Amino acid sequence: MFESAEIGHKIDKAAYELEVPKLREALLDAQFELAQNAKFQVIIIIGGVDGAGKGETVNLLNEWMDPRHIQTHAFSDQTDEERERPYMWRFWRALPPKGKIGILFGSWYTEPIVNRVMGHTKSAHLDKRLEEIVRFEKMLTDEGALVLKFWFHLSKERQEARLKSLEKDPKTRWRVTDTDWERFKHYDKFRKISEHSLRLSSRAEAPWIVVEGEDPRYRSLTVGKTLLAAIEEKLKDGGTHEKSNGFPLLPALDKRSVIKQLDPGLKLAKRDYEKQLEHLQGKLNLLSRHPEFKKRSVVAVFEGSDAGGKGGAIKRITGALDARQYQVTPIAAPTEEERAHPYLWRFWRHLPRLGRFTVFDRSWYGRVLVERIEGFCSEADWMRAYSEINDFEQELAQSGAIVFKFWLAISKEEQLKRFEEREKIGFKRFKITDEDWRNREKWDAYELAVCDMVDRTSTDIAPWTLVEANDKYYARIKILRTLCDRIERSLPPV
Amino acid sequence: MFESAEIGHKIDKAAYELEVPKLREALLDAQFELAQNAKFQVIIIIGGVDGAGKGETVNLLNEWMDPRHIQTHAFSDQTDEERERPYMWRFWRALPPKGKIGILFGSWYTEPIVNRVMGHTKSAHLDKRLEEIVRFEKMLTDEGALVLKFWFHLSKERQEARLKSLEKDPKTRWRVTDTDWERFKHYDKFRKISEHSLRLSSRAEAPWIVVEGEDPRYRSLTVGKTLLAAIEEKLKDGGTHEKSNGFPLLPALDKRSVIKQLDPGLKLAKRDYEKQLEHLQGKLNLLSRHPEFKKRSVVAVFEGSDAGGKGGAIKRITGALDARQYQVTPIAAPTEEERAHPYLWRFWRHLPRLGRFTVFDRSWYGRVLVERIEGFCSEADWMRAYSEINDFEQELAQSGAIVFKFWLAISKEEQLKRFEEREKIGFKRFKITDEDWRNREKWDAYELAVCDMVDRTSTDIAPWTLVEANDKYYARIKILRTLCDRIERSLPPV
Repeated sequence: MFESAEIGHKIDKAAYELEVPKLREALLDAQFELAQNAKFQVIIIIGGVDGAGKGETVNLLNEWMDPRHIQTHAFSDQTDEERERPYMWRFWRALPPKGKIGILFGSWYTEPIVNRVMGHTKSAHLDKRLEEIVRFEKMLTDEGALVLKFWFHLSKERQEARLKSLEKDPKTRWRVTDTDWERFKHYDKFRKISEHSLRLSSRAEAPWIVVEGEDPRYRSLTVGKTLLAAIEEKLKDGGTHEKSNGFPLLPALDKRSVIKQLDPGLKLAKRDYEKQLEHLQGKLNLLSRHPEFKKRSVVAVFEGSDAGGKGGAIKRITGALDARQYQVTPIAAPTEEERAHPYLWRFWRHLPRLGRFTVFDRSWYGRVLVERIEGFCSEADWMRAYSEINDFEQELAQSGAIVFKFWLAISKEEQLKRFEEREKIGFKRFKITDEDWRNREKWDAYELAVCDMVDRTSTDIAPWTLVEANDKYYARIKILRTLCDRIERSLPPV
Repeated sequence: MFESAEIGHKIDKAAYELEVPKLREALLDAQFELAQNAKFQVIIIIGGVDGAGKGETVNLLNEWMDPRHIQTHAFSDQTDEERERPYMWRFWRALPPKGKIGILFGSWYTEPIVNRVMGHTKSAHLDKRLEEIVRFEKMLTDEGALVLKFWFHLSKERQEARLKSLEKDPKTRWRVTDTDWERFKHYDKFRKISEHSLRLSSRAEAPWIVVEGEDPRYRSLTVGKTLLAAIEEKLKDGGTHEKSNGFPLLPALDKRSVIKQLDPGLKLAKRDYEKQLEHLQGKLNLLSRHPEFKKRSVVAVFEGSDAGGKGGAIKRITGALDARQYQVTPIAAPTEEERAHPYLWRFWRHLPRLGRFTVFDRSWYGRVLVERIEGFCSEADWMRAYSEINDFEQELAQSGAIVFKFWLAISKEEQLKRFEEREKIGFKRFKITDEDWRNREKWDAYELAVCDMVDRTSTDIAPWTLVEANDKYYARIKILRTLCDRIERSLPPV
């Protein structure tokens, strides 16, 4: 992959000076149009060999374009707030909104490659990480982002010469650190592993562009022109992206489904409920103060039919916990900032640090439920959401989160009863809206969507718990018991 | 102040059980209405003596109300991201948006009081901090927030008894830490300093409510009823707040002004410009890499007439810096999340960590410029903005930021010339809009507003630099020189 970047590419000064003013003008125009139409964002990833002009190029892009619409992020050591969340959290924070250009200096590639070069990880581990990255970038491009990945390359001889010449000049000496020389020792291994990584992560949606770093004029023009062409091309089709079509999901031909299998008659007497509630809340409280829980977190998702009893169930959980330790996040329509980012961004914002609980009252599953049914997103969008969500939950689990997902299922008759009861009560907050009645008419469509959701996203690390919720007592106890059991199993015995 | 909270207040069980269901119902209704109308937020501050029921009360409020619309924040040690920003940043992050209730367990009071009790600070320092707090809370209430401050009190004997009884019970033993006993040793001093602090910070807009912590029923009912009454009262007037009227600011009677004093004829020849530009950019680059700059940051604000040359001037600054070290933040209309918070919230979000530059292209001064002139906020709002801004910039300076504010002044004739030139150029991004022409008609109003702004917000720690900008070369050099000079003076010589 690097052969073409070791042949001494060069642009002479006259040609360069002729080209640059036009290029700058065109880049500024493209950037302006990008900001105006705000249909997509540009994510530029900068990687490669030290001394190959990465920093110079980033500075040049800021100089050529309007720095007010560029966000440059350099990633060095993680902050403590970052360390206590899934690894990708720091990158989600840095994603530019639509209309902007984000330059990521160092990226999700740095750590996996460096760790492999240094021998901290095995080759299988690197490949697994690369596969995750490919899926992540696919999500970005599916969400409409333009992802450009530049790899700056120098041959071994050239890199050595370059580092030495930087060191010789008093003006640039500060730029060569011991780390640079330390890394240079590993050049061959770095090259081999980089090449492997680039190969596995170069896909049609987000290919790597390898740039020979020796000649500043060549490298600058290459990056500038590539960037310009990519933005102009994407602006041309109005910033919309090709949607690979999904295909219709059919309900099972025998009409059986995980939801229909549930026993609507399950109930619990009030006395039993009260006894078990006290016991389980006490247990949950003890678990939340388990010394090892400081290294874990709980993410609990509540979904269910309207009037299914989510609010009441959530209160039985929070009632067992210290208020300093949990956050309940109700999910409503996204704000304008949230709409300017990939779909999952608004959930990443709310992820708990270690040692804490976050309860989502409705969640990212809106994508494959209400958004699917109401047509708020295209079929292709909700079809790909299943695997995006699975990836997301895997990242949560890898970072120490114990992920729970509860579906509170009531029967159509029970819902009607509850709606009618609520209409009788005077409290404003229980008012039944037209929308509730409209949703009810789509009962079968929802049931199908729920079954698809469970089939496609119930995983070992983040299983769905289907809760028979016609009886509130039964439902609450089942939820609390599920929480206690799995948290207990996830922690070492005291 | 604590006398009434040492007389053994009590509520008997029967009365309590009669009251609580009604109170809970009413609180839920009030909370629902608050969420629906979303005109203001409720900020509940919890402070006081250890063992006086602070934690229990926070949990109870979450139990009584709907935890989905409550955000509880406990403040312990600062994270590293917090340590590198002004002290108040962590609290700004935690402010609830309109429609929500935020419970702050530990608050901006904790550290000043504890540091004084431990003898780490002098009494004058505490008073200064309290004065800042009073101003901060005034800003919150002026912005429409409901601020409730509960102080939980116990007499010395009661506190000792309470800690001992908690320790005796195996179920609650974990709650009494060595720190609690350590702090108990300082009870008398803590009481004296707390009383002093409460007195200085109790104002009509945000009074302290001292609650005797001994009897859980008394304390819970007191907090619940106070909260309910306060929310209901504020909902009644539609969530709007009384606006203390400002009074008209008159221009100086002799028509002289800091803006009119500027010499529109100042200019610089291209050759001189190029020489000085290179020199100053080199110097700025060196300063940005000064080892001591790691403990400082730069916040540079650009304001000025339309077509005044802000963009070009900003590029001459960023051109001297490494892109990893700066962020340019253009300020446009606030997003919906930003509108749901106090005015300055959207600037706090963008504050740099230490060692970095943030350039604001337009800024918080919009409040006293465009918002004043277009009537986007009331006279009372922009009148109080002057002191809120001064407080904000003082916090910036105290945290190590070097604050620059540039006003780029061009003459009315020069603006016309530039508008006409821009209309001739083909580039879309230089299009002159109707709004630009409309703003131009308000030239005199803007000039008056600029003079008021400079008079009221140019301070020693954050001075305004008025830049004669008819000549772009002259303006850019003056700006770069101002930056270099003051950064250089702020750093020890190498």
